[in-house]
Amino acid sequence: MYRSHNCGELNASNINTEVTLAGWVQNSNDKGFINWVNLRDRYGITQLLFDKSRSDEKIFELAKTLGREFVIQVKGTVIEREAKNKNIPTGDIEILVTELNILNAAITPPFTIEDKTDGGEDIRMKYRYLDIRRNPVKNSLLFRHKVAMEVRKYLSDLDFCEVETPYLIKSTPEGARDFVVPSRMNEGQFYALPQSPQTFKQLLMVGGMDKYFQIVKCFRDEDLRADRQPEFTQIDCEMAFVEQEDILNVFEGLTRHLLKEIKGIEVEKFPRITYDYAMKTYGNDKPDIRFGMEFGELNEFAQHKDFPVFNAAELVVGIAVPGAGNYTRKEIDALIDWVKRPQVGASGMVYVKCNEDGTFKSSVDKFYDQEDLTNWAKTTGAKAGDMIFVLSGPANKTRAQLSALRMELATRLGLRNPEVFAPLWVVDFPLLELDEESGRYHAMHHPFTSPKPEDMALLETEPGKVRANAYDMVLNGNEIGGGSIRIHDKATQQLMFKYLGFTEEEAKAQFGFLMDAFQFGAPPHGGLAFGLDRLVAILGGQETIRDFIAFPKNNSGRDVMIDAPAAIDDNQLKELHIKVDLV
Amino acid sequence: MYRSHNCGELNASNINTEVTLAGWVQNSNDKGFINWVNLRDRYGITQLLFDKSRSDEKIFELAKTLGREFVIQVKGTVIEREAKNKNIPTGDIEILVTELNILNAAITPPFTIEDKTDGGEDIRMKYRYLDIRRNPVKNSLLFRHKVAMEVRKYLSDLDFCEVETPYLIKSTPEGARDFVVPSRMNEGQFYALPQSPQTFKQLLMVGGMDKYFQIVKCFRDEDLRADRQPEFTQIDCEMAFVEQEDILNVFEGLTRHLLKEIKGIEVEKFPRITYDYAMKTYGNDKPDIRFGMEFGELNEFAQHKDFPVFNAAELVVGIAVPGAGNYTRKEIDALIDWVKRPQVGASGMVYVKCNEDGTFKSSVDKFYDQEDLTNWAKTTGAKAGDMIFVLSGPANKTRAQLSALRMELATRLGLRNPEVFAPLWVVDFPLLELDEESGRYHAMHHPFTSPKPEDMALLETEPGKVRANAYDMVLNGNEIGGGSIRIHDKATQQLMFKYLGFTEEEAKAQFGFLMDAFQFGAPPHGGLAFGLDRLVAILGGQETIRDFIAFPKNNSGRDVMIDAPAAIDDNQLKELHIKVDLV
Repeated sequence: MYRSHNCGELNASNINTEVTLAGWVQNSNDKGFINWVNLRDRYGITQLLFDKSRSDEKIFELAKTLGREFVIQVKGTVIEREAKNKNIPTGDIEILVTELNILNAAITPPFTIEDKTDGGEDIRMKYRYLDIRRNPVKNSLLFRHKVAMEVRKYLSDLDFCEVETPYLIKSTPEGARDFVVPSRMNEGQFYALPQSPQTFKQLLMVGGMDKYFQIVKCFRDEDLRADRQPEFTQIDCEMAFVEQEDILNVFEGLTRHLLKEIKGIEVEKFPRITYDYAMKTYGNDKPDIRFGMEFGELNEFAQHKDFPVFNAAELVVGIAVPGAGNYTRKEIDALIDWVKRPQVGASGMVYVKCNEDGTFKSSVDKFYDQEDLTNWAKTTGAKAGDMIFVLSGPANKTRAQLSALRMELATRLGLRNPEVFAPLWVVDFPLLELDEESGRYHAMHHPFTSPKPEDMALLETEPGKVRANAYDMVLNGNEIGGGSIRIHDKATQQLMFKYLGFTEEEAKAQFGFLMDAFQFGAPPHGGLAFGLDRLVAILGGQETIRDFIAFPKNNSGRDVMIDAPAAIDDNQLKELHIKVDLV
Repeated sequence: MYRSHNCGELNASNINTEVTLAGWVQNSNDKGFINWVNLRDRYGITQLLFDKSRSDEKIFELAKTLGREFVIQVKGTVIEREAKNKNIPTGDIEILVTELNILNAAITPPFTIEDKTDGGEDIRMKYRYLDIRRNPVKNSLLFRHKVAMEVRKYLSDLDFCEVETPYLIKSTPEGARDFVVPSRMNEGQFYALPQSPQTFKQLLMVGGMDKYFQIVKCFRDEDLRADRQPEFTQIDCEMAFVEQEDILNVFEGLTRHLLKEIKGIEVEKFPRITYDYAMKTYGNDKPDIRFGMEFGELNEFAQHKDFPVFNAAELVVGIAVPGAGNYTRKEIDALIDWVKRPQVGASGMVYVKCNEDGTFKSSVDKFYDQEDLTNWAKTTGAKAGDMIFVLSGPANKTRAQLSALRMELATRLGLRNPEVFAPLWVVDFPLLELDEESGRYHAMHHPFTSPKPEDMALLETEPGKVRANAYDMVLNGNEIGGGSIRIHDKATQQLMFKYLGFTEEEAKAQFGFLMDAFQFGAPPHGGLAFGLDRLVAILGGQETIRDFIAFPKNNSGRDVMIDAPAAIDDNQLKELHIKVDLV
């Protein structure tokens, strides 16, 4: 062992102990006759002392050659520090060095290894191994490990069995694009990497393994929006002989356990709201409920006057922004410009100032009197000193626009405190959603989701109204998990594929093995999957997932550190029976 | 919840309790007026009672329609059984059923769901979800989970951090064949699936994450020998600021912990033997030391007479087989035929019977007298009643042949008891091995392995003699783990690539990122990886890994259950910029 202690553990109780430390040179403070060097490892920083009057001359001189990030080993005595540093656990002591070995020299790193570095995102990704030396990244990885361990412990203690499902599976054209893997031994054939272990976990239920989980990498070859990764990690779970209620209880328990163990926070029973309620109240199926600003639908109080914009709208809807009644004209105009940006897409915005004296001043005073505005205030929950913003237009679009504004204002008002956690369930998702381009219905969750039995009859007549036994867990405005009760009989699964536009042959070719399995005694089952990257980031109080992934890829799906993907040998291609086919 | 209890937990203490159970119909025993049905789930079997005199008529009749593997739910009362079954935990009770729901009917399974099934390997793989219902497979998966959890707990408690490394990485022509993944976003370029996270874990060491582990899938596109899988799982580990001794201690501790926690077995400190000693003593670098039969080298006592076969041989070597002195001529001839099979390849075999009276009877009595044979017996450790078998020829080949015979005889003699565990370390592996075909030296472990400093000088002159700081953990004749101290400076790594026949450009193109990283202050580091599939199988007392993998592939790399790999769409190929290129 190159060390007797790590750089984070020595304190006053160790004074006069002989120790051996190893680590990286964080920095030096060379005063000529005295030279302090900060030695860093994963566990902390310890100050080394080289003193012309007390140190061996050779060592004293050698210490002057140490550059940033040199890897060194020192032996020495723990002594009390004169100028104590109360900010670090080792701040009471320093090491009077008696032996110094340079284990590896270092060239100057391309950015500083500090909590606040001078390195931009690109350079930090290229030298990710240096970035990981920085506390924010290192601590994120340690935090992720802690979360994953707690998940495993909690589920194992409930008799869940982690089962590894295969990575080399079969491509299915449904859903997102697959990454594929040419087979050398099976000419002209390809494996696919799993987008999720969905069918395998259902087969495990058919196999009687009634409580399954797996922390598992999944793959989607999508054009990468910000903060998406082509490979990502799920906590994948499934249970047999359960109803939706059982699943909600188990995984609410898991999340409550994590919040308690990891963050020390006790949360109440999670609120449960329906998808419809979420859309009406927050314009969003993953509402952030750390704050209010719930939607007030104003059609009743806004379409009885001569304001043509509102009268022509399917929906008039507003929110009350707490304490924003004193926004200046300039601030309001800026917000109106903000909602008119193409990313939001509103054509305009009406505002109502709720004065401290109980009167109102609106941008539509020409059309609406104080009584109308009083009703708006009541409906949106506005109080004196607040500002009401009102949007109108087609219902779905307008809700989405107002939701965007609600989130933006909450951010500006500091209402999205990352140390506050407000989880909830959104339930009763629609089974199908209409793809406006193709005019076809797609499975909103996936084609294995069970319709609510009481809505089955609507499948033929009003497919868009069929609700599913599907649910999402939402935390602070993010969907952190989602799942459903599955179909477990062949007839219903066949019917579902039919409604989704599969021919019988297509259904059989792609999912025949699953429908076959259902014939041999499939139990009722359901489950869900959490996105671990996102869950860990939110628990860690962050919005971006990248620092919680050791070696992330950039938006072009590249690993810029190892420079992958890359061209491969012609021989390799030949063995795999493929040719590159550039356009 | 579809059940109040599982099928393994009810006993006499539950008598008179109303319960709800759900599971699969194992079998029925219908006596006309009384009908017993065994209900099975993951946890056990509970007997259900349908009694014409006590059951509702409809339920009684419905129960008669139940087939094997029907999924049912029952409500009823726990009552004492008349004919108790002491072999199962629920054997004292049965359920007088008051309500019966068929949750899913089942067609007849293609093989029996019994511990000893009538299904062959192929059919069980095709319907793996049914195979998993059988105790031997189900218990293997539960056992695997338990082992993995213990590994994670042990390492986490020692401050190891599990870090997920990427699956989409870069292809490197060294080592086994890579599986590759065409990139849609980077035309003409390919990711590779990792054969191991080797370079990433080394970069984590450079990044200061000084104790890393990961239970991780790895991929090798090899022609599959029996009991190999294209995707397999490793317990991958790495530590910084350590020497070989530290690594051996930590992972010996892990293995000892597993043997104790999982098997209840305490083992002594692991023996450590050198590679050279292992080869000389067992003809094998992964010796099974549950039994003796150590090699005795006989050149000294066999090349002084006129037996030309031995005199011409590089090595004459024998083993003493305990209690085999009474083998008949027929048995001996069969063994001689066995070693002459092409898989073993000996050209003949000499035997010496050690009679109970202390005399010897050999197949070479013409050449050797009792004094010679006494020396043979001393050297091989033969006792009265044993049989000595002697092979001769080129040293390496002869050792391999005698090793094969040693293992075969141990199996026949019942000396390979799967409930006895004899772990050991084999250390001081050669750094390089000569590829006889190309005449080139290859890295025996991998090109990142550090030569022993004291052997560095031999690299130029006698590369085959250079030893590495490389080690294998061996358990019951299987290599269950292996690793090395790594090179951690750029100059040595460059030199190593040169010796391995890389041009400077090739080394830079493939491993430039690693050598770059070494310049920024790489700590001394090393590690190892266990093969989890094999480890779990051996701990589970099995020699084959397949039942410890939920969804294994066959020897052609196919998943016969889902029928993968398979052809993919032309559109998919086009998007990926590749064409199938059949010969």
